[in-house]
Amino acid sequence: MTDLTLDDARRRDAADPLAPLRDRFVLPDGIYLDGNSLGALPRDTASALAEVVQRQWGEDLIASWNRHDWIGQPQRLGARIAPLVGAKPHEVIVADTTSTNLFKLIGAACAARPGRATILSEPGNFPTDLYVAEGAARMFGDRRLKTVAADDLVAAIDGDVALVLLTHVHYKSGRKLDMAAITAAAHEKGALILWDLSHSTGAVAVDLNGCDADLAVGCGYKYLNGGPGAPAFLFVAERLQEKLRSPLSGWMGHDAPFAFDDAYAPAPGIARFLCGTPSVLGMAALEQGLATVDGVDPAALFAKASALGAYYIRLMDARCGDAGFTLASPRVDAARGAHVSHAHDQAYPICQALIARGVVGDFRAPDMLRMGFAPLYTRFADVWYAVEVICDVIATRAWDDPAFLTKARVT
Amino acid sequence: MTDLTLDDARRRDAADPLAPLRDRFVLPDGIYLDGNSLGALPRDTASALAEVVQRQWGEDLIASWNRHDWIGQPQRLGARIAPLVGAKPHEVIVADTTSTNLFKLIGAACAARPGRATILSEPGNFPTDLYVAEGAARMFGDRRLKTVAADDLVAAIDGDVALVLLTHVHYKSGRKLDMAAITAAAHEKGALILWDLSHSTGAVAVDLNGCDADLAVGCGYKYLNGGPGAPAFLFVAERLQEKLRSPLSGWMGHDAPFAFDDAYAPAPGIARFLCGTPSVLGMAALEQGLATVDGVDPAALFAKASALGAYYIRLMDARCGDAGFTLASPRVDAARGAHVSHAHDQAYPICQALIARGVVGDFRAPDMLRMGFAPLYTRFADVWYAVEVICDVIATRAWDDPAFLTKARVT
Repeated sequence: MTDLTLDDARRRDAADPLAPLRDRFVLPDGIYLDGNSLGALPRDTASALAEVVQRQWGEDLIASWNRHDWIGQPQRLGARIAPLVGAKPHEVIVADTTSTNLFKLIGAACAARPGRATILSEPGNFPTDLYVAEGAARMFGDRRLKTVAADDLVAAIDGDVALVLLTHVHYKSGRKLDMAAITAAAHEKGALILWDLSHSTGAVAVDLNGCDADLAVGCGYKYLNGGPGAPAFLFVAERLQEKLRSPLSGWMGHDAPFAFDDAYAPAPGIARFLCGTPSVLGMAALEQGLATVDGVDPAALFAKASALGAYYIRLMDARCGDAGFTLASPRVDAARGAHVSHAHDQAYPICQALIARGVVGDFRAPDMLRMGFAPLYTRFADVWYAVEVICDVIATRAWDDPAFLTKARVT
Repeated sequence: MTDLTLDDARRRDAADPLAPLRDRFVLPDGIYLDGNSLGALPRDTASALAEVVQRQWGEDLIASWNRHDWIGQPQRLGARIAPLVGAKPHEVIVADTTSTNLFKLIGAACAARPGRATILSEPGNFPTDLYVAEGAARMFGDRRLKTVAADDLVAAIDGDVALVLLTHVHYKSGRKLDMAAITAAAHEKGALILWDLSHSTGAVAVDLNGCDADLAVGCGYKYLNGGPGAPAFLFVAERLQEKLRSPLSGWMGHDAPFAFDDAYAPAPGIARFLCGTPSVLGMAALEQGLATVDGVDPAALFAKASALGAYYIRLMDARCGDAGFTLASPRVDAARGAHVSHAHDQAYPICQALIARGVVGDFRAPDMLRMGFAPLYTRFADVWYAVEVICDVIATRAWDDPAFLTKARVT
């Protein structure tokens, strides 16, 4: 077990070519393993936002839409996300929220498959995906959402399925679905497929075009470090862009938004999936988040996230093997995203006790302790310390003693 | 004509009890009469945003959703907007964009009026309103958008109309519709009504509940000074909230978003009209925008906006009466919003020449010169100088001489 010492963790950090990237962030004391909920603050975001607010908005006012290319933000940022998900620059655009983008693409896809009534997903998918599909189906009137367990999903795709709607990496278990195989199965039956990349983008390898995927959405505030409630993104394969229309046909997706015509005419290409006026401040913060991966080899990033997760699983096996934890994530690296969950009947108080001691992870109902490993700023030593604190919390049954729940420094 | 001198303008400013509010803003040199496109920067916004970014996001990270009540922003900001539009605090919520909110309420209203196929609006309404209605109608399949000139609109409301969709103050002409009368006419025929308050809120008196209005949307980046692409708001009358469902049924509108149930159950009250994760940075900036009206009597604010517009019309009549301008806005104060437009066959180059000389207004196709009078920071002297520069641009035919188009200070 000599390879599971703190010294070993530090040796891993010393050998990590991505370790210097941590300096691109401002991180508080403690160990933050929740970058899959809210990514950390990039070092340059505050000054970039101050520039946008004070100089661009404050001094140049309305002229900034052109002078500082606010109008081009959705495309510019989309093009920066594209290489992280295996897309061409003009296949990705930044806009609105993940939920709103889901609605646009679900609506567009169903309209493109008339006569097919089913939107197929899996039970336990991230709730907003199911909720939005349900809302879209209700508005169409003649569509319905059907859920089938992931393992039975391919067999359930039939000629009535308009759209298969799945999350690439499950938000709770971290299980990664086989994008290429499921996409091929959907296409074989004439269905379109929409991948939610919220828990993948920036931490897990995604090859949309390599898998011949049709549609995707993703989140800006997790591994892309765009800040709380950052704008989201969407992907539409080039071959489909002219065939699909967003039901959210707002003016920013019009072919000539400033001609103020009464009739809607969708813009060519990906721009037709814009809707209202974009959040310039949100976009400016996301742009700094995207800058934190500048010059970084995506493959190295994804490999590190996977290695951190594998290391955490090994440490938990070795040190907390008899503490009542059951691994709820795939053990095989290739089948897992960048976060790892364990079930435990005391998961909620354990999570609270950890937070009180500076180790920030997530509780997910009913019994899941979830840790996320953002590869840009998480160290192997962070993982080691986190497990050290988990061991201590378990050994002392910290959650039974309210006095123990005081903030403690752990690094 | 002695009352149209610069001295007179300065006397008006000296007598204006709202004049000190200008100090709540950071304003560049020049005369900015485009606050109806993008409101000016409040003095406290930069520091408030820095606090949210550096301390709340940077240090407290995910805990900020509760610790700094990010989760309560949509309701908290909605309640601050409510008194400006004659609504109760729990009838307004801040979310998404105006376009997206239009879609939510058009969808909810049509679903609540089954068997009625028509969404009725006016031609030349702000384009996104028409575009979004068209997109919603297409998704329903059995609805259609019909437009009828404003003066014929009441007569066109019949038993087939599910929803009347109108903008309170027209974005181009500044014409203000009679909210009480049109709302009553819609209700008489069993239709719902949705008012777009984008060019009203914060500058023009609105009394939604006094008019028995059903639904409304509005913009955060114009007279509310929330910054470029600020979050928008929506209003649903209390009596309708439990009867309507948003088609954009995202997780933030769920009764228990963090229970992660598979089935959608709308939250009680106005919260059901939320969709995805809100833009915390956008909300934080809008909160500072709303703070600029703290302690201000709304009636005084609206009276000042109207007086500024009336003064501009008088100055233009008196000084540019023979320069080819035709007033395109109502001359009667009570029928006009807070901006004034003139048609001119050289409107585009005139607008460009004015901008080059520091007077920022808007050109609206095909021939409209539009000036907006944000009451919090516009002075009567600004209006006087603007007309002075317009006179000079006309007298010198400035747009014929490219060398003239150099930036000049005018205050």
